[in-house]
Amino acid sequence: MSDEQELGITESKQYNTGEWYAEVVQKAGLANYGPEGMSGFIVTRPRGYALWESIQNYLDGEFKKTGVQNAYFPLFIPESYLEREKDIVEGFDPEVAWVTHGGHEELEERLAVRPTSESIIAPYMAQWVRSHRDLPLRVNQWASVVRWEATETKPFFRTKEFLWQEGHTAHETRDGAWDETMTRLSQYQSLYEDVLAIPVLRGAKPEHDKFPGADTTTTVEALMPDGKSVQAGTSHYLGTSFAEAFDLTYTTEDEDEEPAHTTSWGLSWRSLGALIMTHSDDQGLVLPPTIAPEQVVIVPIWQADTQEKVLDYAKDIAEDLEDAGVRVELDARDERNPGFKFNEWELKGVPVRFEIGPNEVDDDVVTAVHRPDGDSVELDRENIAEAVQAQFDEVYAKLYAAAEENLEENVREASERNEILGTIGQHGGYVKAPWCGDEACEDEIKEQIAAEIVMVPLNDEDAEIHDGENCAVCGDDAEETAYFAKSY
Amino acid sequence: MSDEQELGITESKQYNTGEWYAEVVQKAGLANYGPEGMSGFIVTRPRGYALWESIQNYLDGEFKKTGVQNAYFPLFIPESYLEREKDIVEGFDPEVAWVTHGGHEELEERLAVRPTSESIIAPYMAQWVRSHRDLPLRVNQWASVVRWEATETKPFFRTKEFLWQEGHTAHETRDGAWDETMTRLSQYQSLYEDVLAIPVLRGAKPEHDKFPGADTTTTVEALMPDGKSVQAGTSHYLGTSFAEAFDLTYTTEDEDEEPAHTTSWGLSWRSLGALIMTHSDDQGLVLPPTIAPEQVVIVPIWQADTQEKVLDYAKDIAEDLEDAGVRVELDARDERNPGFKFNEWELKGVPVRFEIGPNEVDDDVVTAVHRPDGDSVELDRENIAEAVQAQFDEVYAKLYAAAEENLEENVREASERNEILGTIGQHGGYVKAPWCGDEACEDEIKEQIAAEIVMVPLNDEDAEIHDGENCAVCGDDAEETAYFAKSY
Repeated sequence: MSDEQELGITESKQYNTGEWYAEVVQKAGLANYGPEGMSGFIVTRPRGYALWESIQNYLDGEFKKTGVQNAYFPLFIPESYLEREKDIVEGFDPEVAWVTHGGHEELEERLAVRPTSESIIAPYMAQWVRSHRDLPLRVNQWASVVRWEATETKPFFRTKEFLWQEGHTAHETRDGAWDETMTRLSQYQSLYEDVLAIPVLRGAKPEHDKFPGADTTTTVEALMPDGKSVQAGTSHYLGTSFAEAFDLTYTTEDEDEEPAHTTSWGLSWRSLGALIMTHSDDQGLVLPPTIAPEQVVIVPIWQADTQEKVLDYAKDIAEDLEDAGVRVELDARDERNPGFKFNEWELKGVPVRFEIGPNEVDDDVVTAVHRPDGDSVELDRENIAEAVQAQFDEVYAKLYAAAEENLEENVREASERNEILGTIGQHGGYVKAPWCGDEACEDEIKEQIAAEIVMVPLNDEDAEIHDGENCAVCGDDAEETAYFAKSY
Repeated sequence: MSDEQELGITESKQYNTGEWYAEVVQKAGLANYGPEGMSGFIVTRPRGYALWESIQNYLDGEFKKTGVQNAYFPLFIPESYLEREKDIVEGFDPEVAWVTHGGHEELEERLAVRPTSESIIAPYMAQWVRSHRDLPLRVNQWASVVRWEATETKPFFRTKEFLWQEGHTAHETRDGAWDETMTRLSQYQSLYEDVLAIPVLRGAKPEHDKFPGADTTTTVEALMPDGKSVQAGTSHYLGTSFAEAFDLTYTTEDEDEEPAHTTSWGLSWRSLGALIMTHSDDQGLVLPPTIAPEQVVIVPIWQADTQEKVLDYAKDIAEDLEDAGVRVELDARDERNPGFKFNEWELKGVPVRFEIGPNEVDDDVVTAVHRPDGDSVELDRENIAEAVQAQFDEVYAKLYAAAEENLEENVREASERNEILGTIGQHGGYVKAPWCGDEACEDEIKEQIAAEIVMVPLNDEDAEIHDGENCAVCGDDAEETAYFAKSY
């Protein structure tokens, strides 16, 4: 870290969320904005990329345990391929970056920088699948995609290029493909709830907001502290539309030729945005121990006459933790005082700080301080590696509980238009309301307060209740329960 | 695997190397050619990608142990950035793919799809580095790059888009940067020699064949069975040219401002090409156990009355191996006979096959068969997991020895032009010859037999010998020892 770096976060999360977020991302060393002429692009610095690697490792492990293999498809898609599935071309054409020249030659056909890869993966799956014995077929790729949206850059949340994984599968039956869709949605939910300490809601996107060409788009939605919802991962049951467009068929046991049922599912570095936004505070980044690059930082506190004994003790503890697989950093810099170090590691989001001075050495203990609440506890030197795991669990539980409380307090009900508008206007969060299913009713809300229907419950247990209920906006018969919210 | 797939390799490695290679790549399920209109691109199938993941895991681990952090930089580079380092723009401009449109809008400035990332990484390193305390700075990214070359596609060896890693570092001194350059070259060498069972030669590229803008380009070169050399990984000491072009400077302890010394180093999926080409044979893929997705395949051989006992025994062994961390596949398919299975797993390159019939069950043994030479050995059922490791070592040693023999037999010396031409023409391989250092002498050889100087030894221990020696081509005083070879 350079001398010139200013450590303090100056913006307020509560009053100035957007600027605060941008400041945390930059000062914690997660990302920089792209170069001049490339607004919408970011540079992901090592501390930011390490978080993405943790997410990758977790999901990749879950995918592989459940039959998914990684592959890699070309970065470019010929325009004619993109055009073969009409919903895809309508949905993505306005935001495609086009390669028109290779070297000094103009290309005969423009190539799309992939905005998503169904249009190039499906035709290859079609080559690989002959019979029902080749199904299910499951491939995933970790890659970047480009969507040329002209909105303001928000690192990880909204960028023209983003890192993600996209899984693509083919199945014999609708049921097989639907189970797959749900399996992946559940894995996304686990990532959020078990790794990132963020509870999510599961649902489906309304018809008019589905992935282009999909039969059903399912989503996990996370509520941010500013009251807006993040579409945190989506899993699509594509029906047979892509299979039909790209001749992805198989022969059944009876030698009939049938189109496969396909799925696709993607999770991007937006998950990083949700992580940063949910837990961090006006001192900087806050990370759950599950994902923090350093889980413990040891800050030794010495005077000239105690330096040696304090440092020896601290090193010994660092070694113990390392041997136990704990990610630990011993900050033994001589040129910085403990207060400076506290601030720096708080900014960087280390979940547990060990403070070790002469007293700790004499008493054979360490003082462990939690991020973000500053709670401190004295731990015995003996079995320190075990004891610290309990601290990690505690920190994780606190972060999760805070996020859960925010979510639970912010799902409200409404039965008429003004109630929707008023509740979201005042509190943010989700408003559940009976809905007729018509996009026009969403538009009315959108125009007034820029809130939209972010999901409808997946298993509509409220189905019966809708008997006799009316759409909160237009008053026609209600068909579904809509979750209105402002959205990232 | 579908019924229709033809298992056999029909081309000959010895007589028709190019066609044989293409057939192995496709029939072993490693890669397909890209879509129409996108010649030069390939689709990397799961079995091919798994090999790349193994290479990634190994190198990424080595990098991280030696101070490298991963990061991610934008896919595109503004044309004006590319132009800031003049050698880069001269070297890469003819093969850049250009993005000219985003959505329906023409861009104000064209964006290069990265052919290599020095021009976008250096300016960010310049932002991150202030003082000598920020150095060394080491970042790496795993990414794809695009170079629009108009040559024939050869999967993994020559493709317009390829996967690689590119490491970029900045240092205070020339010595620091040079040590870095050598560290990375040694890690590449280890990948080949300790993981891929391919011995390599280390050297430097001649002046006129350096990476654009580099002070020195070092290389590991691998000799393929067809007598051609593969540039298998390169590590560049860039001097201060990139630092000067992008203002990457630091303040010394004495508060002076100095340009940093930088390096970059890259290894691509060409390493996969070398792996496939080196060991495979006319039965298909051959893989060392270090990298094989399945290290052992168990093929049970039964009649109706022995099926249960053979299968139980086989399952039990598979579990033992799995518990010991061995990558094992039990091929219990009922609809395929053992002969078919042998062929299929040979094609796919599984290094050790366990054949288990009723006799093996009765005798409490397994028959282990090595790929590629078919050597078989009887192993005791007890301690099978340990015993199989010894088989892996043996298979690895055999593969390495064969590659090493090929290399050792094919480094020859020559002292005049016709000897160079004749020796390479007749045998392929490397020809060492004294050289004056002038590109024109290489051109003469290149024009006649398409061989070039692939490297000069790094520590020219032959330096003294050159006293009184003459360039094998022009007869002027010799300055270096050149390794001539045909090259991929």
